[in-house]
Amino acid sequence: MKTALSQLGQNTAPPSISWLMQLALSRPKMVSLAAGFTDNESLPVSEVREVLAEILATDATGQAALQYGTTPGDPQLRKLTAAHLLSLDADAIKNYKVPANGTKAVAPNKKSPSYAPESVLITNGSQQLLYMITEALFDPGDIVILEDPTYFVYLNIAQSRGLKCRGVKLLEDGIDLQHLEDILEDLKVKGELPRLKMLYLVTYFQNPSSVTTSYEKKCAALKLLKKYEKLAGHPIYLLEDAAYRELRFSGAEVPTALTAPVNAERVIFAGTYSKPFSTGVRVGFGVLPEPLLTVVTRIKGNHDFGSANILQQILKHSMSSCRYKGHLQNLRQRYQRKAEVMLKALQKHFPKEVTWIEPEGGLYFWVKAPSYIATGPKSRLFKTAIENDVLYVPGELCYADDSSRRKSTNEMRLSFGGASLKNIELGIARLGKVLHSQLKK
Amino acid sequence: MKTALSQLGQNTAPPSISWLMQLALSRPKMVSLAAGFTDNESLPVSEVREVLAEILATDATGQAALQYGTTPGDPQLRKLTAAHLLSLDADAIKNYKVPANGTKAVAPNKKSPSYAPESVLITNGSQQLLYMITEALFDPGDIVILEDPTYFVYLNIAQSRGLKCRGVKLLEDGIDLQHLEDILEDLKVKGELPRLKMLYLVTYFQNPSSVTTSYEKKCAALKLLKKYEKLAGHPIYLLEDAAYRELRFSGAEVPTALTAPVNAERVIFAGTYSKPFSTGVRVGFGVLPEPLLTVVTRIKGNHDFGSANILQQILKHSMSSCRYKGHLQNLRQRYQRKAEVMLKALQKHFPKEVTWIEPEGGLYFWVKAPSYIATGPKSRLFKTAIENDVLYVPGELCYADDSSRRKSTNEMRLSFGGASLKNIELGIARLGKVLHSQLKK
Repeated sequence: MKTALSQLGQNTAPPSISWLMQLALSRPKMVSLAAGFTDNESLPVSEVREVLAEILATDATGQAALQYGTTPGDPQLRKLTAAHLLSLDADAIKNYKVPANGTKAVAPNKKSPSYAPESVLITNGSQQLLYMITEALFDPGDIVILEDPTYFVYLNIAQSRGLKCRGVKLLEDGIDLQHLEDILEDLKVKGELPRLKMLYLVTYFQNPSSVTTSYEKKCAALKLLKKYEKLAGHPIYLLEDAAYRELRFSGAEVPTALTAPVNAERVIFAGTYSKPFSTGVRVGFGVLPEPLLTVVTRIKGNHDFGSANILQQILKHSMSSCRYKGHLQNLRQRYQRKAEVMLKALQKHFPKEVTWIEPEGGLYFWVKAPSYIATGPKSRLFKTAIENDVLYVPGELCYADDSSRRKSTNEMRLSFGGASLKNIELGIARLGKVLHSQLKK
Repeated sequence: MKTALSQLGQNTAPPSISWLMQLALSRPKMVSLAAGFTDNESLPVSEVREVLAEILATDATGQAALQYGTTPGDPQLRKLTAAHLLSLDADAIKNYKVPANGTKAVAPNKKSPSYAPESVLITNGSQQLLYMITEALFDPGDIVILEDPTYFVYLNIAQSRGLKCRGVKLLEDGIDLQHLEDILEDLKVKGELPRLKMLYLVTYFQNPSSVTTSYEKKCAALKLLKKYEKLAGHPIYLLEDAAYRELRFSGAEVPTALTAPVNAERVIFAGTYSKPFSTGVRVGFGVLPEPLLTVVTRIKGNHDFGSANILQQILKHSMSSCRYKGHLQNLRQRYQRKAEVMLKALQKHFPKEVTWIEPEGGLYFWVKAPSYIATGPKSRLFKTAIENDVLYVPGELCYADDSSRRKSTNEMRLSFGGASLKNIELGIARLGKVLHSQLKK
């Protein structure tokens, strides 16, 4: 008997790192630097206790929180979210240093639809937004351009829906614009521009590379997309995934693509309160241009007719008091400390042939071994690391299947999010020992 | 310029009753008997306050609740859910009266995968399960058989994904089995059985009709599906949507299809804690046979990698204390009272030409006007009702587009869930007046 599964059902692959998680659980001494968990001790227990006491103090507010909400989300939370984005972008623009020959940044327009509460859609983490955007835009065989490397769960979504992925090279300040143009030209020559729907960028402390895309590059990418729109015959969107934006602990804030002077109307913005506040209170949000806003809201209606109301009330109360900001300040300090500890451990334990970029925020170090050391799931390094009770995410899991590009095979994602300070030191020491053992003499 | 939207994006229709909700909001004196909201005053504010105080009392339990969980859901909640289902089914079977010539019901098998915690998937309400099951099974053009009338949000999902719907006649104890067989024969003759993936039944106090499917009919439907599987060449599933099951206020409990002696391995069970506990703490669940369990869990990983942990903790604590059961007992009494008030109002205010079935649970009365009175969104009755500040769901919205069947045009769904006792009486009085004015003399 054949399967009754749909194409999507058959194509949906197991999550890239679920077996990593299983591995971690099966060895009690394992130090996992693989999981993208947030710092457990920093989770806002007292803040959530306080706001819930407020919310549930009276029948009127308690009942409202325990009743259905609306599909796009709590109006007040949407308003607070729009104001929050506007305030972050206004500050970022104010402090923005125009590079030589750079575009002058202008203050974000309060009246732009990008900062209107009506453009905000509340979702179950930003993950659900990524999923629904992909549903709304892509038929099987349609094309997405994404960073090389990129967020591997997005690769799972893309693969499950039969998207073609084109990887664009990632530099230290965002994508290689010349490479993006080459890809667009290549699609033009092959007549494939009509299948191109979107460029997907994780713009702050990218998962996995920790690279932050410069404002200049966001603006330039939007200009390039606009140039090719005519030949595509339809809008080409930029999906800016800013999941880690608020986890900055050093360096200057960068404005979002929502403030871009040209083509900002093609920006889909994905944000979240999950990483900066609580991953167990999973509330994300999107800012969407029409007709996507309408269509994705309808899709959300079919998914779940709106995110759980009580979670939205928790965020609303935390945002409108000072609890959200206060918590975030503590959180940044904690991650800064954790990043410092990992950095020192890397400097101490890793061979000098191994390199990394120092992150200014987020949860990850992206580490390059010498090219002759493979880091993949079947590599000797990975097996030896497991035998030594330390786990990392093999870099090649973060590269799309793109026949025009070779996947790097010597990279690793190391997370300082979930592990304790002691385990960060211990895990890096173990991994350093394994790396040393595999160096060519 | 053309649209960049996918087929799904273009096909996803606005929710059937969003405009009804808008209407209700725009007229402050409007009494809405349309919304499927739960009773506001019954929402478990003190219970949720108590369990949250427990959960957030210590850093250890608080942090665990505010951290990511796992994709299939909290292991303890899955265990409690499986045990809860087993206990409900064991009681139902014990009290089950075998009809003349009926199949003898046997006690549910504790060791069956249907009651194993590992078969349970926690979801965002049962709505998300319906969506993901449809994703996992259906390609555009595939066929679902569903009740005529059926849950209209499921019709939206089906329509957005390009499913062909075949409506099967609904009698007072569930679908017309002869009609189901006729449809299966018709599909066989047309060579369309390979496109048939599923029969979708809302088995308890169905939305919209309040009909409960008898155990006999569930078993017979499963047998019929099994008979046609060979010709289909793949499994044909029964999706049992039991969203309203625990809202029974009279009559005897009916066992689920999970207990069926034949072909129970094809049952997909959708349940929820949303309606019986809190719609703002949206936690639903499914019991799925393989390979669907694996595939739908993967899809859930791409949607949101697991439902918000804190919501699951709320349910876990409510279930493992007596709070869930205690709340449910109160809730049933409230709905019983509301149903009685609506029944008395119907008897008092509605013309004798209008008929209904008395519900034994759930949230709805399904009302039939004389066939010459149209109830649809463009009907004189509907417009006059709005002018008189009362709102109902036109019955025809609950019928699939099925060219082989004629949609009934003279029915209404009236909900006693959200309205107060006073408004139930008031709304029915207004609607009764409107109905009287349209009777043929």
